[in-house]
Amino acid sequence: MIANITIVGGTHGNETSGIQLVRNWQQFGVPSAYKGLSIDCYLSNMAAIDANVRFVEEDLNRQFTPALLARQPQCQEARLAHALNQQWGPKGESDIDLLIDIHNTTSAMGATLIILQADEFHTQLARYVKQQMPEANILVEDEKPPAEHAYLCSIGKRGIMIEVGAQPQGVLRADVYDLTERMALAILDFVKAYNSDSVPELPPCDVFRFIENITFPLSEDGERLAMIHPALQDNDFAPVSAGEPVFLSFDGQPQTWQGETIYPHFINEAAYHKLHVAFATATKAQL
Amino acid sequence: MIANITIVGGTHGNETSGIQLVRNWQQFGVPSAYKGLSIDCYLSNMAAIDANVRFVEEDLNRQFTPALLARQPQCQEARLAHALNQQWGPKGESDIDLLIDIHNTTSAMGATLIILQADEFHTQLARYVKQQMPEANILVEDEKPPAEHAYLCSIGKRGIMIEVGAQPQGVLRADVYDLTERMALAILDFVKAYNSDSVPELPPCDVFRFIENITFPLSEDGERLAMIHPALQDNDFAPVSAGEPVFLSFDGQPQTWQGETIYPHFINEAAYHKLHVAFATATKAQL
Repeated sequence: MIANITIVGGTHGNETSGIQLVRNWQQFGVPSAYKGLSIDCYLSNMAAIDANVRFVEEDLNRQFTPALLARQPQCQEARLAHALNQQWGPKGESDIDLLIDIHNTTSAMGATLIILQADEFHTQLARYVKQQMPEANILVEDEKPPAEHAYLCSIGKRGIMIEVGAQPQGVLRADVYDLTERMALAILDFVKAYNSDSVPELPPCDVFRFIENITFPLSEDGERLAMIHPALQDNDFAPVSAGEPVFLSFDGQPQTWQGETIYPHFINEAAYHKLHVAFATATKAQL
Repeated sequence: MIANITIVGGTHGNETSGIQLVRNWQQFGVPSAYKGLSIDCYLSNMAAIDANVRFVEEDLNRQFTPALLARQPQCQEARLAHALNQQWGPKGESDIDLLIDIHNTTSAMGATLIILQADEFHTQLARYVKQQMPEANILVEDEKPPAEHAYLCSIGKRGIMIEVGAQPQGVLRADVYDLTERMALAILDFVKAYNSDSVPELPPCDVFRFIENITFPLSEDGERLAMIHPALQDNDFAPVSAGEPVFLSFDGQPQTWQGETIYPHFINEAAYHKLHVAFATATKAQL
């Protein structure tokens, strides 16, 4: 039974679609079909939202590991994480049955549902969302136990993320907003079916399972030597095999992928600028 | 005679294509066909580039009015503007015959050449660029005399801007980089022809002439009530006539354009977030 749902926007203060969805649902109410659910809509990092930045001091969505929550907070977002953990948690003992944290990305990832585990609930959820939104992508980040994740949504008993793109930071696009809302409603439809024990039997669906982040080629003094190849740009979740171009160096040479076939995503995400992350890789699987 | 050319990137520190073009031409040299020209490549706001932000305190590209250059600078970018005016100017007495300032935008403006006056030089330049790059847009911002503009490029004897999009802030896209470089080379081709008195006779070309900025609908306490309508998004420089939708309010109602036919541009530009500018309008004309 999913009794308590919390929907969060503004974990990154310049990701506008989740912020606007929360504001709209706060102002106009959750759509009437879902009035029977207990839904709390919340903006998490108000200081970052007001400043129209991802974060003020450090990434709020990397503050929720057990280790970080156990130690004295050292920055504004760490203090906020401790306060949210107090309010919604503590992690591992939360009353929130499902925490939905809404994000957007400059990568052309379309409407992506990120789940942190592949247990029965999340498997059913993924299949249901994929059936309602065949264009949706399901990304499974279960390379570690859910409780070990640093994500805000990991405070909840169950935590998932909606990640939609492409949308520049600080910009609200109607198409991205629409995908975000449609995915949120698909999740709430699933919860209604789950609670009334009427989830249909659904076939396995395609998912992408995170492997690792790939960084840009860098010089010895840390300067980028290449950009994303135009053949890779905007092609999130399409397969890339050995020999296919992934980078274009600034002297005009393509650089190709070496290794097993991968499904790149978060291609050219603005927020990974400082880390020089070019894209993340995934395998394709069935859930 | 265009003897001295200065090409500037990083006037906005998170507009990566101009920054990368300047870095590449500094490292690899200007393409050999242009070795005969005296070209200085320069990054203007290093502090903003290092921080990956548009500006540190205030917009550098709004600091170059005669009034602001005459008064004691009050912020980091104003001090930088005074220093650049010292180095390259003073405004009105510059040795730089052509200052090319490179920008990018989150709006889908393609490759746009912005000129501040429609004299013979700029008319020939516009026609030449348009002939070499038929997909280019020419935007004329001559609603005031060039010297009255606040733009960095207005320090030069002649000043123009390259503005390419759509590209998120802090992201470098290969397609945007390519358009940027192609437009820079088209401008340098024109300068070579101009200097050798061999500019061909060219027919008038279509241009867009800036009228005004349009703000988002706001509540009494300054909150946005609408987003850009999906029919307008990504349609920079396409005509919008009375009755056509421009906004979609958060309660789901389209809001239509009232008045003469306009050519919107800078649609949903991230940098105008604080000012709540939704788009700029223009008329279409021949130059």
